[in-house]
Amino acid sequence: MATIAIHGGAGTILRSAMTRELEADYRDGLTAALNAGWEILERGGPSLDAVEAAVISLENFPLFNSGRGSVFTTEGKNEMDAAIMDGSRLRAGAVAFVQNVVNPIKLARLVMEQTEHVLLAGTGANQFAAQQGVEMADDAYFFTQHRYDQLLEARDRGVVQLDHTVDEADLITEADERPKGTVGAVACDNAGRLAAATSTGGMTNKKFGRIGDTPIIGSGTYADDVCAVSCTGHGEYFMLGATAYDVSARMKYQNLTLEQAAAGTIARLTEIGGEGGLIAVDGRGNVTLPFNSDGMYRASVTADGEFIIDIYA
Amino acid sequence: MATIAIHGGAGTILRSAMTRELEADYRDGLTAALNAGWEILERGGPSLDAVEAAVISLENFPLFNSGRGSVFTTEGKNEMDAAIMDGSRLRAGAVAFVQNVVNPIKLARLVMEQTEHVLLAGTGANQFAAQQGVEMADDAYFFTQHRYDQLLEARDRGVVQLDHTVDEADLITEADERPKGTVGAVACDNAGRLAAATSTGGMTNKKFGRIGDTPIIGSGTYADDVCAVSCTGHGEYFMLGATAYDVSARMKYQNLTLEQAAAGTIARLTEIGGEGGLIAVDGRGNVTLPFNSDGMYRASVTADGEFIIDIYA
Repeated sequence: MATIAIHGGAGTILRSAMTRELEADYRDGLTAALNAGWEILERGGPSLDAVEAAVISLENFPLFNSGRGSVFTTEGKNEMDAAIMDGSRLRAGAVAFVQNVVNPIKLARLVMEQTEHVLLAGTGANQFAAQQGVEMADDAYFFTQHRYDQLLEARDRGVVQLDHTVDEADLITEADERPKGTVGAVACDNAGRLAAATSTGGMTNKKFGRIGDTPIIGSGTYADDVCAVSCTGHGEYFMLGATAYDVSARMKYQNLTLEQAAAGTIARLTEIGGEGGLIAVDGRGNVTLPFNSDGMYRASVTADGEFIIDIYA
Repeated sequence: MATIAIHGGAGTILRSAMTRELEADYRDGLTAALNAGWEILERGGPSLDAVEAAVISLENFPLFNSGRGSVFTTEGKNEMDAAIMDGSRLRAGAVAFVQNVVNPIKLARLVMEQTEHVLLAGTGANQFAAQQGVEMADDAYFFTQHRYDQLLEARDRGVVQLDHTVDEADLITEADERPKGTVGAVACDNAGRLAAATSTGGMTNKKFGRIGDTPIIGSGTYADDVCAVSCTGHGEYFMLGATAYDVSARMKYQNLTLEQAAAGTIARLTEIGGEGGLIAVDGRGNVTLPFNSDGMYRASVTADGEFIIDIYA
């Protein structure tokens, strides 16, 4: 049975720091993305197209840290990472720190479909983008004032910062400085094929060509014939725990349900000091969206086609 | 009980295409590297130091595709990847396509110990190298004629090529064109602490900033409190299978021995079309070195301190 789930990042998302207008905007962004993916599944389309469409919608929505609205590096640039995986064929494509690419997830899909590789990075990945003729935009397209203000503040304070930092300065604690901005989608189509996609602008004030978990197959993104997983949170811990693949491994090797496996994976993430969450689906249309942070922007579709949208824990 | 295993790459390594002199050189290189690591373990040193020392030795030896003697990109450059993981603390550091760094594995260790990150790539990683003051060398240091000839030939034929290509032109088949060059080490020290390290020059004639499995935690390199794993072979398949972490997952979730788990992981690799091998140790000093290719340059130490060095299947 076809289903889809999406996320718009996890972190210190507090109701007390959210205005009614801003919350409505976030809900609109999630609804539009879920709809973009669900439309494809409803008419019998492939899960791969559905997760790509949902992530494109999230990338284009400036409030989320991916595509338009990505955070800034220490040099004031937007450098973006993305990955997509087709579980039914066990194929994947990913890009790391590409610049000026309107939809990094489309470029990740081209890596999967047009090359023998899985991951392309940096200027080389941008050369590939040019060769493929993907849509590019100038820096102004990606600029958002709230992200730029976050960079200025992070530079002042000498920290690397998460994307969903609350606005009140007095609420900004050690925990808030962790990077937790990502968008993602997982889906199962009518044929039971699974797919996952994840996209991010990375960490505010990042430097030295840091790559997080998003474009790493097995860490931030994974799909096979068992489940499809997209993660969001403090990326380094998802890399150390091989978090996305761990859900599949627990299902395959321990015969756990999707929900049990994902809960075990998040428990392990907590144990090793990581913060964030994941969304996952299996081939029977089960969905789970566990996280250990204060909130995670998330949405999914029920068996009856009803949209469920949530932000807080 | 302390033990160590190393590899110098897997691929189409045929006895018929090897001279006696060349085979002796490979054996010398493996012996020196095993010795560099074993010396540290024998005097009670940490596995992390042992795997680093072994990989430094392999990086410095020009016959192996890492450090000095790395293959050339399509632009005639040496771009290197490396990763190291400390299983006892579940920490890791990695670098991707760094240039002119004499020992990429040392830089990977600095990422682990001096930053909050796991993976740094490209010019950013080179900036980090400069900041840390690691040893650099000009292009001439990394140049080897046999690698350059491989590039010229690969360019002529328009293919991306493995490192251990046999010399006879008539032996070069489709299979030979796959990338399989890497070096690596895994060790268990007297305290039962596990560590893994892997380093590579990547694929001959590679372009577009391709990153393979070597610097990907969970794909080419992994260590935790269960096992330490370093892989070599056609990197993309090791990424799709989350191969290095899969050994740990099978041990933890299926209660398999190291040997059973690694055999299962290689069987899965074969099933998905991947070629290559891995070396692995567990906390009791067990060692396994399975591969599905014609050969893998490999060495390990027995319980009696005897060195075992092998090349062919």
